[in-house]
Amino acid sequence: MLLGLTHRRCLLKCRSVKSQTTRSAVVDSALSAFRSICGEDGVSLAAAVREQHGKDESVHRCFSPEHALLSRCRPPDVVVFPRCVEEVSAIAKVCHKHDFPIIPFGTGTGLEGGVGAVQGGVCFSLRNMDQVLDLHQEDFDVTVEPGVTRKALNAYLRDTGLWFPVDPGADASLCGMAATSASGTNAVRYGTMRENVLNLEVVLADGTIVHTAGKGRRPRKTSAGYNLTNLFVGSEGTLGIITKTTLRLYGIPESMVSAICSFPSVQAAVDSTVQILQSGVPIARIEFLDDVMIDACNRFSSLSYPVTPTLFLEFHGSERSLEEQVNTAEDITQSNGGSDFQWARDPETRNKLWKARHDAWYAAQALRPGCKAYSTDVCVPLSQLPQIIVETKEDLIENRLTGPIAGHVGDGNFHCLMVVDPDDPEELHRVHLFTERLARRALAMDGTCTGEHGVGLGKRALLCEELGHTSIQVMQGLKDALDPKNLMNPEKVLQLRRV
Amino acid sequence: MLLGLTHRRCLLKCRSVKSQTTRSAVVDSALSAFRSICGEDGVSLAAAVREQHGKDESVHRCFSPEHALLSRCRPPDVVVFPRCVEEVSAIAKVCHKHDFPIIPFGTGTGLEGGVGAVQGGVCFSLRNMDQVLDLHQEDFDVTVEPGVTRKALNAYLRDTGLWFPVDPGADASLCGMAATSASGTNAVRYGTMRENVLNLEVVLADGTIVHTAGKGRRPRKTSAGYNLTNLFVGSEGTLGIITKTTLRLYGIPESMVSAICSFPSVQAAVDSTVQILQSGVPIARIEFLDDVMIDACNRFSSLSYPVTPTLFLEFHGSERSLEEQVNTAEDITQSNGGSDFQWARDPETRNKLWKARHDAWYAAQALRPGCKAYSTDVCVPLSQLPQIIVETKEDLIENRLTGPIAGHVGDGNFHCLMVVDPDDPEELHRVHLFTERLARRALAMDGTCTGEHGVGLGKRALLCEELGHTSIQVMQGLKDALDPKNLMNPEKVLQLRRV
Repeated sequence: MLLGLTHRRCLLKCRSVKSQTTRSAVVDSALSAFRSICGEDGVSLAAAVREQHGKDESVHRCFSPEHALLSRCRPPDVVVFPRCVEEVSAIAKVCHKHDFPIIPFGTGTGLEGGVGAVQGGVCFSLRNMDQVLDLHQEDFDVTVEPGVTRKALNAYLRDTGLWFPVDPGADASLCGMAATSASGTNAVRYGTMRENVLNLEVVLADGTIVHTAGKGRRPRKTSAGYNLTNLFVGSEGTLGIITKTTLRLYGIPESMVSAICSFPSVQAAVDSTVQILQSGVPIARIEFLDDVMIDACNRFSSLSYPVTPTLFLEFHGSERSLEEQVNTAEDITQSNGGSDFQWARDPETRNKLWKARHDAWYAAQALRPGCKAYSTDVCVPLSQLPQIIVETKEDLIENRLTGPIAGHVGDGNFHCLMVVDPDDPEELHRVHLFTERLARRALAMDGTCTGEHGVGLGKRALLCEELGHTSIQVMQGLKDALDPKNLMNPEKVLQLRRV
Repeated sequence: MLLGLTHRRCLLKCRSVKSQTTRSAVVDSALSAFRSICGEDGVSLAAAVREQHGKDESVHRCFSPEHALLSRCRPPDVVVFPRCVEEVSAIAKVCHKHDFPIIPFGTGTGLEGGVGAVQGGVCFSLRNMDQVLDLHQEDFDVTVEPGVTRKALNAYLRDTGLWFPVDPGADASLCGMAATSASGTNAVRYGTMRENVLNLEVVLADGTIVHTAGKGRRPRKTSAGYNLTNLFVGSEGTLGIITKTTLRLYGIPESMVSAICSFPSVQAAVDSTVQILQSGVPIARIEFLDDVMIDACNRFSSLSYPVTPTLFLEFHGSERSLEEQVNTAEDITQSNGGSDFQWARDPETRNKLWKARHDAWYAAQALRPGCKAYSTDVCVPLSQLPQIIVETKEDLIENRLTGPIAGHVGDGNFHCLMVVDPDDPEELHRVHLFTERLARRALAMDGTCTGEHGVGLGKRALLCEELGHTSIQVMQGLKDALDPKNLMNPEKVLQLRRV
């Protein structure tokens, strides 16, 4: 128990050998400090709780120094459950004093191994801070604590005529989504978290509380100094703990229409996407599913869509403008050989259609029961999409891998939902090599290895290839400036430097 | 000549007294290095050139250490005209070696005193780097060098069906607009520079060339590491010199309609704005002009709009959707007591209408010939607009100041165009006190003192009030990490620390 803490202290501070008694005394005093801050119930050493907080939904494996073993789960030494920012700050100060790593934890729905306690340490589970604060309906903004998920916020907003559109697959916490720079199916119209966060409250490694745009500020635009808000958005807990986020809200559209359309080729589907965007249709969602994905969806949800490259579309607006939008889109898809264009106007049919899309993850997993899904996440300029998708499908077939494709094609972002046996190291290795080839293919086309899932543990080496040495050095300089002891979620995003 | 350089060297390095000969030798060797990098024509010591590069369009005065005098212009010691990023980097390396301040210069159209050489130093005029590079029509992106202005880019794009919508009043350079986090009348629909820059090439103080999103990368979204792009957007030359920017482009709308409407009160105009936004009308521009501003426009452009609070609106879309948008907007304005709603469909009438709006700056100045305009720039949540505008108008009257109001009300951002005699210190002082009261009024309403003009010299003290001590300290930490010698545009954005 608490070996990780002791190990880290030992690594960082106690270069001369200290007795086990001294170490235990330090750990005991920290634990009692945590208990006096959060209460007895707010501190857990239970193995099950620690394990639950040591992993996300990825298949990345962490190196465990005690066992020299690879494991998906790397539990923290202790989990704390603060109830307010003052408690977060107070616990961070104790950690800072003792050089304990600090790992923020939202819902654990990340996909790149962002929460494993690679060096041990203290996991800050933020689920008890779950209040929606300061809704300003007339100003289209709201502030939420880190325990509030996107679905919980939209349920809270139900009677206001407003909604928050960013929708990664999981029901993630909004502060976690900010930390990951998440997006989803609506980004083509409403932007990603980067465009929708107005302000953040952040606790730094030394316990300092910072308001990135000034306390309580919420202008819709600003040019007041460096953009701290967007420095913390996407920093994945490596620069600070996000304890509040102020978000832009949108009016719920008067009307929504969905549609689905089948295509003879990937090229035809992507050409339609580009032309729809060029035509100025303010499309709300435009999702691509390849033949393998459609087949999986048909099987999983007992549907009978043609097994060809397919677009799922959604239009938001007034009744009249929708008719025009859909007509334009239908004309464009037809001119590209699209067929079986089906509208869905009533909520029930619309929901059925989108449920099929949202169940893609489970539909993919159901192709190989007992296996786990791992999602790739490249994003390229639109014109490169057909080529990269075609090459990637060939690669999958050549390497006997199951990886149906679904993507937010309006942004140039797509996922191969790799279905793998997590206990088969040879298959995991093949998947690993495939994902590296895919990422390098995206990089060669001016794209990124990660459109919306972040870097975590999984993409650190690729990040270096993507950004180059000088940009990584600049990022490391910023990390050193904000977290000189390297306590905040260590080893995530940036690789440990060789000394 | 070159006193500034020597002075700074003296301050920073030569704590023991050095002979004038040694100083001159250093300066001479730097100058010949500049000439060997940029050519003879690429280096200027001429007084007129230095003065032209020592000021922007603001009325801010800099402290000049030699003369202990206040002056609008603080010329650099030398102006260099690099022709490519390699030359920028090579000159920066020379400056870094000798501790010379580095001041980037675009078009000099800034409004907050961002280019004065407060500590002397080397001005990098980027006008010779004026190429539009790498237009990708199908991907809606383009890369430009720092000498390209927004109008030059749109002229270049004329036959492509694409445009770049961000439009500050002046024909500023696009890299300068990125450095200032500028916006304009189209931000309510298309966002500000923050949302429209995909990648930057930046030269740091030591000459290192950094690509914020990796060299040549241009995915529409990314979660690959810290958001360096948005850290440099809005950094006003204090973190690095922007030598390339990759921008999002948009399809030119099929059709555009403008409209103008008069209101009985500020409240009625702002209520209409909020309701139009809530209704989901994708309004492209919604500009407010108060009675004084309309009166000035009428006089300046021989127009006869009713002298009351007024909205100028613009709608972008298809023919059919426009009709609906305009009808919805007209219904909303009428229900708020709006009258004299006039459409402008044909380009000529539309251009006449927007020319009146764009001439507001000159119309205001024409109210007092021989005077200079200074623009305030607060931005508040929408619901606070009526109150702050009413209070501000009372303040103007009480203090006998001329300050017609024009604003991007869809964003909550408005400007008082203060018309002042730049040679009347008493009036300048009254304007200064007024702008401070206005900024504090905005801060008390959760807003910002600068929506789109930046901080420069003019808003440094207010920035501290707006953000608070800890956020300023974080910004200072980032500045120290990227520019440890404090060479990049010193004393802008962040105030000099007392030692």
